[in-house]
Amino acid sequence: MNRRTALATASLIALIAAVPASSDSSSLEQRFDAGVNPKEMSDWMKLMASEPNHVGSPHDKINAQWEMKKFQEFGWDAHLEEFQVLYPTPVAEAIELLGKKPFKVTLQEKPIPGDTSATAKDKPLPAYLEYQGDGDVTAPLVYVNYGMQDDYKALERMGVSVKGKIVIARYGAGWRGLKPRLAQDHGAVGCIIYSDPADDGYAREATYPQGPERPPQGIQRGSVVDMTLYSGDPLTPGIGATKDAKRLTRETAPTILKIPALPIGYGDAKVLLASLGGQVVPENWRGALPITYRVGPSAPKVHLMVKSEWSLKTAYDVVATMKGSELPDQWVLRGNHHDGWVEGAGDPLSGQVALLEEARLLGELAKTGWKPKRTIVYLSWDGEEPGLLGSTEWAEEHGDELKKNAVLYINTDGNERGFLGVEGSHDLEHFVNTVADDVRDPETGKSISERARAQIRMEALHPGARDPQAAARLKDDAKLAADPTKDFPIGALGSGSDYTAFIEHLGVSALNVGFGGEAETGGIYHSRYDTWEHYKRFADPDFAYEAALAKTVGRMVMRAADSDLPIQRTSNFAATVERYVGEVKKLADNKREAAETQSKMLADNVFEVASDPTKSHADPEALKPVPQIDFAPLDAAVTKLKAATRAYDDALAAHGAALSPDAKAKLRALMLTLDQTLAPDVGLPVRPWFKNLIYAPGRFTGYGSKTLPGVREAIEEERFADADKYSKLTADALTAYADRLDQATAVLEGK
Amino acid sequence: MNRRTALATASLIALIAAVPASSDSSSLEQRFDAGVNPKEMSDWMKLMASEPNHVGSPHDKINAQWEMKKFQEFGWDAHLEEFQVLYPTPVAEAIELLGKKPFKVTLQEKPIPGDTSATAKDKPLPAYLEYQGDGDVTAPLVYVNYGMQDDYKALERMGVSVKGKIVIARYGAGWRGLKPRLAQDHGAVGCIIYSDPADDGYAREATYPQGPERPPQGIQRGSVVDMTLYSGDPLTPGIGATKDAKRLTRETAPTILKIPALPIGYGDAKVLLASLGGQVVPENWRGALPITYRVGPSAPKVHLMVKSEWSLKTAYDVVATMKGSELPDQWVLRGNHHDGWVEGAGDPLSGQVALLEEARLLGELAKTGWKPKRTIVYLSWDGEEPGLLGSTEWAEEHGDELKKNAVLYINTDGNERGFLGVEGSHDLEHFVNTVADDVRDPETGKSISERARAQIRMEALHPGARDPQAAARLKDDAKLAADPTKDFPIGALGSGSDYTAFIEHLGVSALNVGFGGEAETGGIYHSRYDTWEHYKRFADPDFAYEAALAKTVGRMVMRAADSDLPIQRTSNFAATVERYVGEVKKLADNKREAAETQSKMLADNVFEVASDPTKSHADPEALKPVPQIDFAPLDAAVTKLKAATRAYDDALAAHGAALSPDAKAKLRALMLTLDQTLAPDVGLPVRPWFKNLIYAPGRFTGYGSKTLPGVREAIEEERFADADKYSKLTADALTAYADRLDQATAVLEGK
Repeated sequence: MNRRTALATASLIALIAAVPASSDSSSLEQRFDAGVNPKEMSDWMKLMASEPNHVGSPHDKINAQWEMKKFQEFGWDAHLEEFQVLYPTPVAEAIELLGKKPFKVTLQEKPIPGDTSATAKDKPLPAYLEYQGDGDVTAPLVYVNYGMQDDYKALERMGVSVKGKIVIARYGAGWRGLKPRLAQDHGAVGCIIYSDPADDGYAREATYPQGPERPPQGIQRGSVVDMTLYSGDPLTPGIGATKDAKRLTRETAPTILKIPALPIGYGDAKVLLASLGGQVVPENWRGALPITYRVGPSAPKVHLMVKSEWSLKTAYDVVATMKGSELPDQWVLRGNHHDGWVEGAGDPLSGQVALLEEARLLGELAKTGWKPKRTIVYLSWDGEEPGLLGSTEWAEEHGDELKKNAVLYINTDGNERGFLGVEGSHDLEHFVNTVADDVRDPETGKSISERARAQIRMEALHPGARDPQAAARLKDDAKLAADPTKDFPIGALGSGSDYTAFIEHLGVSALNVGFGGEAETGGIYHSRYDTWEHYKRFADPDFAYEAALAKTVGRMVMRAADSDLPIQRTSNFAATVERYVGEVKKLADNKREAAETQSKMLADNVFEVASDPTKSHADPEALKPVPQIDFAPLDAAVTKLKAATRAYDDALAAHGAALSPDAKAKLRALMLTLDQTLAPDVGLPVRPWFKNLIYAPGRFTGYGSKTLPGVREAIEEERFADADKYSKLTADALTAYADRLDQATAVLEGK
Repeated sequence: MNRRTALATASLIALIAAVPASSDSSSLEQRFDAGVNPKEMSDWMKLMASEPNHVGSPHDKINAQWEMKKFQEFGWDAHLEEFQVLYPTPVAEAIELLGKKPFKVTLQEKPIPGDTSATAKDKPLPAYLEYQGDGDVTAPLVYVNYGMQDDYKALERMGVSVKGKIVIARYGAGWRGLKPRLAQDHGAVGCIIYSDPADDGYAREATYPQGPERPPQGIQRGSVVDMTLYSGDPLTPGIGATKDAKRLTRETAPTILKIPALPIGYGDAKVLLASLGGQVVPENWRGALPITYRVGPSAPKVHLMVKSEWSLKTAYDVVATMKGSELPDQWVLRGNHHDGWVEGAGDPLSGQVALLEEARLLGELAKTGWKPKRTIVYLSWDGEEPGLLGSTEWAEEHGDELKKNAVLYINTDGNERGFLGVEGSHDLEHFVNTVADDVRDPETGKSISERARAQIRMEALHPGARDPQAAARLKDDAKLAADPTKDFPIGALGSGSDYTAFIEHLGVSALNVGFGGEAETGGIYHSRYDTWEHYKRFADPDFAYEAALAKTVGRMVMRAADSDLPIQRTSNFAATVERYVGEVKKLADNKREAAETQSKMLADNVFEVASDPTKSHADPEALKPVPQIDFAPLDAAVTKLKAATRAYDDALAAHGAALSPDAKAKLRALMLTLDQTLAPDVGLPVRPWFKNLIYAPGRFTGYGSKTLPGVREAIEEERFADADKYSKLTADALTAYADRLDQATAVLEGK
């Protein structure tokens, strides 16, 4: 065989051989599976979701204490860890349409007959957006579509300004918190966010209680803290929010909004939107209300008022530990939050009760003789909803230990009927595949990996309104999913749940795991109607996917805790990074062409000549010309990375099992902190709290991931000097990763 | 200079020099322009649109007679030419939702207060679809989205059949007539078509009378005759429907539907759609009604009944002639129809009064000494709406003369505020550009060509939901439009107005000309509200674009009539055909890849595994594997065509002006019938009435053009043997075109 064939074959062997369930682990996993009890998870969810459980609520503390006792009952070493976090709660609120036909918006959701949770005895707080700015303003209203950057560009073209206005934005297209922030940046004095039935209501399915979708009075609460700068308590960036922590003031905390903002339902939004005059919106701004959507401004003014109580509240993290028998200083972390906006049955308790079930079963196994090699830490977070408070503060407080000891962090959150979805560190992609191959899908009896592959392939058939680059990515994903000799691809992490501080700030490998895509349950997201009754009817009637989640994550935890050899398959990471580099190059080319086209169009006065003179309009702001960006360092790094990862994976497959204990220890030490090479201290431009140079939430997507963010966002935001700078910095990080692998390969090859 | 540079320079000179307005014609055109009278066109429209004027109505005949007299008054030789056409008119109709909450659909549009035309004394016929099949059926209802081929494929995937059902389809996405026909082909027993407010109603703008859009009770009438087989009277394909013509029977006429069908408004459609059970529709099937759209079937049945009176009616074409002074046997034809569905102010009378204004002004010029070199024939067609009856019967009746004498046919139809839009024979593209350069846009004072270029460039910036091939086409168009040394591109003709028989059946060069794109007036299309009042408020308040249309088409007629040399610029045609060949190759490649992907997915059971087991579903029908198609003949023909067109255009520029009268006569004779080489007698597969191998309406788009239809549709419809066959036949036609040009070049070069 020539070298190329030999390597390919070695890779294939490695692919088939690495991280399999040994026969020991296989029987262990069978015992785990046999114990999974859907009824128990349903009961737990019902109990935990019986009252509102946001930060500072009585039931939030009760849940944490109850969970701690449960862990202890299961045989874990468990305690509560408390943080003092800023958590404003609404005291007074109003939205009114003034003028001849005055109208007052309802900010409380009425109970649903027959839904006992939605009639819990603790009255929920009125609808609110956490960390908005409080205020009392009266101004005309302007509709800004999803309130994203492109929408403001379109407004500019229409000759409409939001300066001094209150904006109304619909939910969707980007993270909620960007909407009031961009409104504020553009001079608006207040912001209303509503759920349009096109995205979240009757257009999708019948509304609750007839069906699963958001009823007209349903309101999506949520945080509008600027998590794109840093997550966690706004007053303690980078450090744990302990009692004595040095705090910013509310006024100096850069992540807190300065203008008032509130969320409303579409029943009321219809009245506000119908009051708007001005131009008809562009076609892709239309929602599904039976009105002509207009940009505004409204002739009658709108009055918006929010007053909150701004004291510190206590966040209760539950920390449960099962000490490792052989490698106690290597920690396998697994978490899910326990706070919700109201009862929070689906979000977060569906993930939480699976976590609890795993803990019970691991406890059972431990009681009957099994001891994990590594230490397992189960974490039930508080305060995820307002800003990933519990997880971030804990990760910041324990940052040094975590950087030394953490193997990986596995996160879950809401979970329901459907397909396995995983995002995370791509050197864990193969690990995810081996687990997914061994778990059965409750509905079809196929493996959950076969179903995941099928779903990925189906999605590529229907790219929908995705941009050409996203459609091309889907197609590449589908090719991988169709090839049984390849792993199915996992996604990249952005933000939006408790993995953030681990992967983005500390550089600890992370996975986010969940099932979904078949149930139509987004309609009760962050509303009073996210109840046990709703979950049971629409999300996962048999709790079968709750069981599947416990089996999937339980396996991940056990395999990561017990694995003799490092669990990474690094060539998956190299292949993924190579794709990302191709994407940013294409992005620069497309952006260059767009700037050139636009420049010619401006020079030829095309925008003016093509405008309807009976409507107000303006030329678009000129795009900056795109220089040639120096991708050479990235190209070189990818070449090196591919060679290093292939060599390492091959060496692991060839020599791993036969390694001496000393060498194994050396190997483990090298591989334990491998991913931290990707998160050097420099951090990202504007927001150095985000250290990871491969994965980040987008500055202008909020939740959505931007890969190679230092380079990609620099191109998108026309900071071309940054693009060159981060091409180099990112290349350095990749090179450090490759260098580390070279050391590991040397250990494996006995050099 | 080397040969290539010399040729390029010669081409550039040709580009600048060919078919300019001579100083004579320029002063003629200035006199024409000076006479254009918007007030007169407004008065004529008001008069002609004062009563319903469909085929067989009293006012239809009155309008024809009035126009004939007008032409005579203007100094033209004018007469009526009558045809006896099948024109069923509704006698009894009903749509009812049965069951517990019975509901009766209203099939008459109520008058709008203040709109005097909509309260004309002749009561309009109830809503109807011309050439539906009559019948009385009761069955459950199924929603089929736009009722196009892809929609039936999606239904199949959902496991839903329309067999024995009544379907309800929304207007849009493809020609109306395909909806009941595809329903019939799939076993449905009846068809209801409605206007969804997403496409045609409040989602776009305020509704009439508050705004221009379709009100809830507004109904789009229209023809559902199968114009993809042949246009014109269903009983006399290929021959004129004269009194004694040999006729098919209604039963044997293949273009008449067998099932009953009716159109309704969205106010009533909402009730029918809300009665549907079953699965929720795919996302792109949703309209803008405030309901959850479901596929059905409905639990309560629907009763649909139509009874018509099927006698022959008289269609009145007005034919007005101004004889040529030098070349009386070369005819410049210009037409627009005069029949509407109700009052028809916008469609067709906005185009018709511009035609009449041109005729008046040409008459004025003739009275003051001008005589056109060629004969000008102005044509006001009857029966366009039911199936291009007047124009097709006339073209069929006079086919032999037309093939001998017709220079070109210029068509208009509805016209309103906005941008110049032209489709037609691409060897007339440059001719169109030279005219457009000389007409001012009323709103901006720029030339209408500058505005057209600007609009094309803007469109490429926002391809919207277009498929990648259509988006690429836009981009190529924009590149041409941005280059001042190139002509801006004109579109390809399909069907949908009176040019059809000329270009598609006879192979006579044709242009279709109109302004639009700024007024939002589609909402009254084919309804009772297409009135003079509506037109004046929303379409073109000052009749300024009516004036612009008269100036544009007037110039085309005068230049075509007076031109000393042939008006074609043939290299535009070659460049366009080259693009089309590229498209069909890409189509085959994409189709091949799709078939391969789908085949693997079927083999891997992906569709089943990815399906939600709680919903009914089925695998898609397997796509046929796509063989390598023999494009070699087309490639060779394009190479030859490019050389021949370049040589001809250069020779014309170099020698045309200095040609002897004899040579000129020879040249004219060769070039007069040039485009007929593209329409050999063989015709298209399945529908040989369509002879043109470059342009045709799509079998499954109806109006929309399919270029190189013999090849393109064969690939789309998986008739791969036809693809090879028509690759050859189309290549032969292109080669004949090139050969003819070579003869013309020889004449020019004095060989």
